[in-house]
Amino acid sequence: MRLAYSTWPEITAFLVDSKTVVIPIGSNEQHGPMGLLGTDWMCPEIIALAAEKIASEKNTALMIAPTFNIGMAQHHLGFAGTISLRPSTFMAAIEDWVLSLARHGFDHIYFLNGHGGNVATIEASFSQIYARYSYTGETCPLMLKLKNWWDLPGVATLCNKLFPVGHGMHATPSEIAVTYAAYPEQVRHVDLIPKIAPSGPILDALDYRARFPDGRIGADSSLATIELGQEIIAMSVQGLLADVQEFSAQVKPA
Amino acid sequence: MRLAYSTWPEITAFLVDSKTVVIPIGSNEQHGPMGLLGTDWMCPEIIALAAEKIASEKNTALMIAPTFNIGMAQHHLGFAGTISLRPSTFMAAIEDWVLSLARHGFDHIYFLNGHGGNVATIEASFSQIYARYSYTGETCPLMLKLKNWWDLPGVATLCNKLFPVGHGMHATPSEIAVTYAAYPEQVRHVDLIPKIAPSGPILDALDYRARFPDGRIGADSSLATIELGQEIIAMSVQGLLADVQEFSAQVKPA
Amino acid sequence: MRLAYSTWPEITAFLVDSKTVVIPIGSNEQHGPMGLLGTDWMCPEIIALAAEKIASEKNTALMIAPTFNIGMAQHHLGFAGTISLRPSTFMAAIEDWVLSLARHGFDHIYFLNGHGGNVATIEASFSQIYARYSYTGETCPLMLKLKNWWDLPGVATLCNKLFPVGHGMHATPSEIAVTYAAYPEQVRHVDLIPKIAPSGPILDALDYRARFPDGRIGADSSLATIELGQEIIAMSVQGLLADVQEFSAQVKPA
Amino acid sequence: MRLAYSTWPEITAFLVDSKTVVIPIGSNEQHGPMGLLGTDWMCPEIIALAAEKIASEKNTALMIAPTFNIGMAQHHLGFAGTISLRPSTFMAAIEDWVLSLARHGFDHIYFLNGHGGNVATIEASFSQIYARYSYTGETCPLMLKLKNWWDLPGVATLCNKLFPVGHGMHATPSEIAVTYAAYPEQVRHVDLIPKIAPSGPILDALDYRARFPDGRIGADSSLATIELGQEIIAMSVQGLLADVQEFSAQVKPA
Amino acid sequence: MRLAYSTWPEITAFLVDSKTVVIPIGSNEQHGPMGLLGTDWMCPEIIALAAEKIASEKNTALMIAPTFNIGMAQHHLGFAGTISLRPSTFMAAIEDWVLSLARHGFDHIYFLNGHGGNVATIEASFSQIYARYSYTGETCPLMLKLKNWWDLPGVATLCNKLFPVGHGMHATPSEIAVTYAAYPEQVRHVDLIPKIAPSGPILDALDYRARFPDGRIGADSSLATIELGQEIIAMSVQGLLADVQEFSAQVKPA
Amino acid sequence: MRLAYSTWPEITAFLVDSKTVVIPIGSNEQHGPMGLLGTDWMCPEIIALAAEKIASEKNTALMIAPTFNIGMAQHHLGFAGTISLRPSTFMAAIEDWVLSLARHGFDHIYFLNGHGGNVATIEASFSQIYARYSYTGETCPLMLKLKNWWDLPGVATLCNKLFPVGHGMHATPSEIAVTYAAYPEQVRHVDLIPKIAPSGPILDALDYRARFPDGRIGADSSLATIELGQEIIAMSVQGLLADVQEFSAQVKPA
Repeated sequence: MRLAYSTWPEITAFLVDSKTVVIPIGSNEQHGPMGLLGTDWMCPEIIALAAEKIASEKNTALMIAPTFNIGMAQHHLGFAGTISLRPSTFMAAIEDWVLSLARHGFDHIYFLNGHGGNVATIEASFSQIYARYSYTGETCPLMLKLKNWWDLPGVATLCNKLFPVGHGMHATPSEIAVTYAAYPEQVRHVDLIPKIAPSGPILDALDYRARFPDGRIGADSSLATIELGQEIIAMSVQGLLADVQEFSAQVKPA
Repeated sequence: MRLAYSTWPEITAFLVDSKTVVIPIGSNEQHGPMGLLGTDWMCPEIIALAAEKIASEKNTALMIAPTFNIGMAQHHLGFAGTISLRPSTFMAAIEDWVLSLARHGFDHIYFLNGHGGNVATIEASFSQIYARYSYTGETCPLMLKLKNWWDLPGVATLCNKLFPVGHGMHATPSEIAVTYAAYPEQVRHVDLIPKIAPSGPILDALDYRARFPDGRIGADSSLATIELGQEIIAMSVQGLLADVQEFSAQVKPA
Repeated sequence: MRLAYSTWPEITAFLVDSKTVVIPIGSNEQHGPMGLLGTDWMCPEIIALAAEKIASEKNTALMIAPTFNIGMAQHHLGFAGTISLRPSTFMAAIEDWVLSLARHGFDHIYFLNGHGGNVATIEASFSQIYARYSYTGETCPLMLKLKNWWDLPGVATLCNKLFPVGHGMHATPSEIAVTYAAYPEQVRHVDLIPKIAPSGPILDALDYRARFPDGRIGADSSLATIELGQEIIAMSVQGLLADVQEFSAQVKPA
Repeated sequence: MRLAYSTWPEITAFLVDSKTVVIPIGSNEQHGPMGLLGTDWMCPEIIALAAEKIASEKNTALMIAPTFNIGMAQHHLGFAGTISLRPSTFMAAIEDWVLSLARHGFDHIYFLNGHGGNVATIEASFSQIYARYSYTGETCPLMLKLKNWWDLPGVATLCNKLFPVGHGMHATPSEIAVTYAAYPEQVRHVDLIPKIAPSGPILDALDYRARFPDGRIGADSSLATIELGQEIIAMSVQGLLADVQEFSAQVKPA
Repeated sequence: MRLAYSTWPEITAFLVDSKTVVIPIGSNEQHGPMGLLGTDWMCPEIIALAAEKIASEKNTALMIAPTFNIGMAQHHLGFAGTISLRPSTFMAAIEDWVLSLARHGFDHIYFLNGHGGNVATIEASFSQIYARYSYTGETCPLMLKLKNWWDLPGVATLCNKLFPVGHGMHATPSEIAVTYAAYPEQVRHVDLIPKIAPSGPILDALDYRARFPDGRIGADSSLATIELGQEIIAMSVQGLLADVQEFSAQVKPA
Repeated sequence: MRLAYSTWPEITAFLVDSKTVVIPIGSNEQHGPMGLLGTDWMCPEIIALAAEKIASEKNTALMIAPTFNIGMAQHHLGFAGTISLRPSTFMAAIEDWVLSLARHGFDHIYFLNGHGGNVATIEASFSQIYARYSYTGETCPLMLKLKNWWDLPGVATLCNKLFPVGHGMHATPSEIAVTYAAYPEQVRHVDLIPKIAPSGPILDALDYRARFPDGRIGADSSLATIELGQEIIAMSVQGLLADVQEFSAQVKPA
């Protein structure tokens, strides 16, 4: 069940049986010469919607929120098309999303993340939200969870198998393959030079551009294919369904 | 040309000829028993993408940013599924989007808006951005524009003609028709009681729910049809293409 | 009754019968070569105090708060004497004024505004205040209203009649006439060149100064006279008394 | 010269000869059963305007900004009519006033203060403004000064002589006398019980109300008279003229 | 009893008998050619720990919090080693410390301060904290107190006696003597030129450096000795014990 | 070389040869019935100071900043003595520390961290700092690094060897051993029940207290001894010296 494609009475009805919602969250940032700017928000969206389809076929509704498509990508701002929130803005926005959903009774809020650069700020946001309760001693009804799609059960193992060399850290063949599988018309063929991009630390935008001239880090994006993307999506979907089910079953101690 | 479905070198190439970008912006909030929660971000997205298609067929690329899908909807929080940013958060996020795009050279930034409740905060954001330059006396390269899709040339006249009675202010048949045209599988049939919803002022969430029990204001959403939606989209697309062209041609005085 | 010219026990006594307060709010910004920098806060103050006088003669006390004299005028900062708050500061200040007055029991808070540039930010502030209640589901006792003095019943019609040509948008003969009527010693005679100032969009301060070299927009300020100002004040006072009475009678639904 | 009662070309002309501006700043808060809520912003305004009159008669223009009428008075919120900014809001507003005036070339900005509760926050604001330059190593053109009117040369000595007993700390006969002298129609006669109010520390609003039931601290407001107020104003005006002259002559080291 | 050197059950046990905690607070900033950068946080820490020792010997536990070692020192940023918080950051941090301690039941929170530049911001912070309660009308359990160590009973008199000439305002022989007494290995011998540093106003960092080339204001730091420091510490310890005892006994009115 | 125990000319001299500074950073929070509240800021301080001693014996100065002793510990607020910053405050404070040190020329800033709960917020802070440069395209001179002391080379291996069972995640025998080694008088003997504490997720303060009644997570703190602490410190010191040396040698690409 997709929240944005529902009416409010349908959400009210859903909440009778489940208080769990999945938010695909990513970033809109350069992914080298072959990857789409939207790669990091598309991947979790693609996986979440595929999982939702399967769940609804089994009559076990999975609630998917609209995609949170702009995250923390200050280091990519040296490449055209990147849009980033400052961490402070990102935190405020996550807080507002969570408090809005909590207002309606959702108390298990699961962020399916597609961007490594988001992780620290999302976790800081969770603490900021919990702190509202922790300073006052009020009971907090919320359980918040962050999961990167590549950390879903089975996915890392699969990606390592599919791309033993050249997976790298940014503009990886696995994430690009996922988008190619979902949007076959977006496949690009580019001669990457060097084939495997350099690696190094991530600091500010100018430093990033100097270290990683075409935007990739350690990756050979050209290994991505539609077929491999389909495999990765299938594994991720299974992992997500299992992980959300387990999360939904968790309860807070009295 | 869709920014998120491009690579960074493609954006760099685009910027040689044009510095204009269109951001569909809306809200995710209840739209009564017949309207989708995503109505207000879907409408500008639908119109912008349809316009982009026509533009690209004419080889006059129109750059469409990812959709800004959560806006200021505090008054709708009494209905399940609504997600809102506080105005202060919304302003910070708009500022970050604009400064990111400005970093790459975009200097004509056009927000195509689908939610009346966003207008004040978006305009306040523009002033917050301009103020960065106005206090220091630095030259500001930016032209920012906000346009509601229903204010595009020809659209209001058409909607008045199509819905002389029962158009109302929220969950209007025109916005719902636009989403039905784009997502025919989402058409809903509901007996609305009363047919035309009550009207009144908009304050906080509990007040809103008490005044407008099913969420609509002054509207008979059941007048929406796929065909009427197609008509409205077509008119909006023409209006958008003309309006953006005019905006792109504007220059700041020396 | 003027709040600042009262003692606290007098305010306590007033609150037994009425919970309404009127806040004159404006801006301190250039108004061309003939208009006072204080024009936009003086106009609502002049009108509110004149209305208060009439009300108190009829033993129907009208509570007038101190004047909120600095608003959002970033676009005027290219002209000496302009003082502006950033939108974010303006919002925080409005929130504090409202919460202070609410603390004492005022629940109908009416902002009589004299500056078009304030409108978006004041409305965003109202949403920020309401949001405090909307996210938590607490009952909000407040009704907040913004009214520009030129939108009071009868005023626009009168101004159109008095100034069929050259009214314009900034440093208008109507606002300058109001200040001249209240402060006859401040009348200035200046040869305006051109007689009717240019029009155009409002962006940042340097852009504004380049478009509108003497500060006026579309206006022939030299049409202002003391007598016309008196007429406008009289009409505005009637409009304000009626509008506040109607507002005070409004109640929130249970 | 009063900034708000000037046009922008007049301010531009003034700035040729002087870069100094005086801002009357105070608070709107309870002053016991005899004092006006506006006492703390009225006193500096009364003194500043009287000084301006004398200065202009001597052709030595003194620039008086609009009055900053709402300050930090959280501790008075237990009494009706008090309006307070939070310290964080107050700081942001002072910063915006200062940066606006600095934009035009004012570099000696003198706050004539009428409220003890403002002192800490105004000084913190000055540090916040200076810090903009201190972290970056940029040259800061500004000299900011805070002066309480009762600390002007000669004033404390006079007040001690006039009110050897019962001057106290809040709703003092000296500040009330100043407002009575300026607004003779506002004189109130109230039997104060006890004649001299209790003293004690200042914490939050409920604590304040419990300690100081009618709002006064240590003061016998009934000692205030119009004539004494005139004496205090005369002394304060002399003190202000001398102090501002000295301040204007100060220069920053190269 | 030192909070950081205790376990949580020990703090819980302490709170049965006392709700008072002392926070040494200072700054890390240049103190001329002879004074340590940490002087301003070391002094209150030294005095508080010495007092704690005496108290514990008498079985009257005194709770000493960890030292708040970075304060507001923007004006010292022109000298290497200075670390400063902006006032807005400082306020947020003080608020968080206080709310954390209040969460556990501490309601008498005593800041023993070692830096004059902290005073305004700490007091503004107290108002910011109290304001949380004052706007809502909730009962505030907290009593907050700020005391500079040189204002403890007996200390100023002693310092005046010990240093009748050359005490000055910054890098004073008294504060340097305190650190020399506590850290005898840190004694430095420097030829100060001039012996007594110049005096003047404190503005931004570059201005400060131009006025006070070696960082001292009005002080002859070379008067500091270990023995004099011991005397000052002894007097301060007595003053602190007395002052905290009195503070702890204060109760808020019902 | 300890920054706080130096004078500003000594820091200036140091900066001729090195631009690296190490900041011990931790938290003040409950560590179960045997661990000190200060454990998390003491550990990095102990290790950094021991390393500094060795370095100075070799005439290779290591600059150690004052300890940042309060971090993000909202989840521990259910236990007395915990002091926490909200993430937003923590970020502002880190930003101010970094910008202060950068002002003097430090450009390699190394945070030696002692608290897992700090990691996300410190990393978000780094991004917030870098973002100042990334949005504008200005060159950023800074390299920022976060290292947990238990991630220093060799340390995890040692701890696993020393505590194959019962190491756990909070109030671990390794961190407690480090503090016991440094402060032997603080060794406590407590019968822990159960010996090995439960494990689970970390959410808000009340949830934490319910899951982990005595504050420990997964740890048997009673395994800590002074001797083991000495071993861990020795290994950590070697690791720190090597890691800082490597960091100092890194340069940003041109």
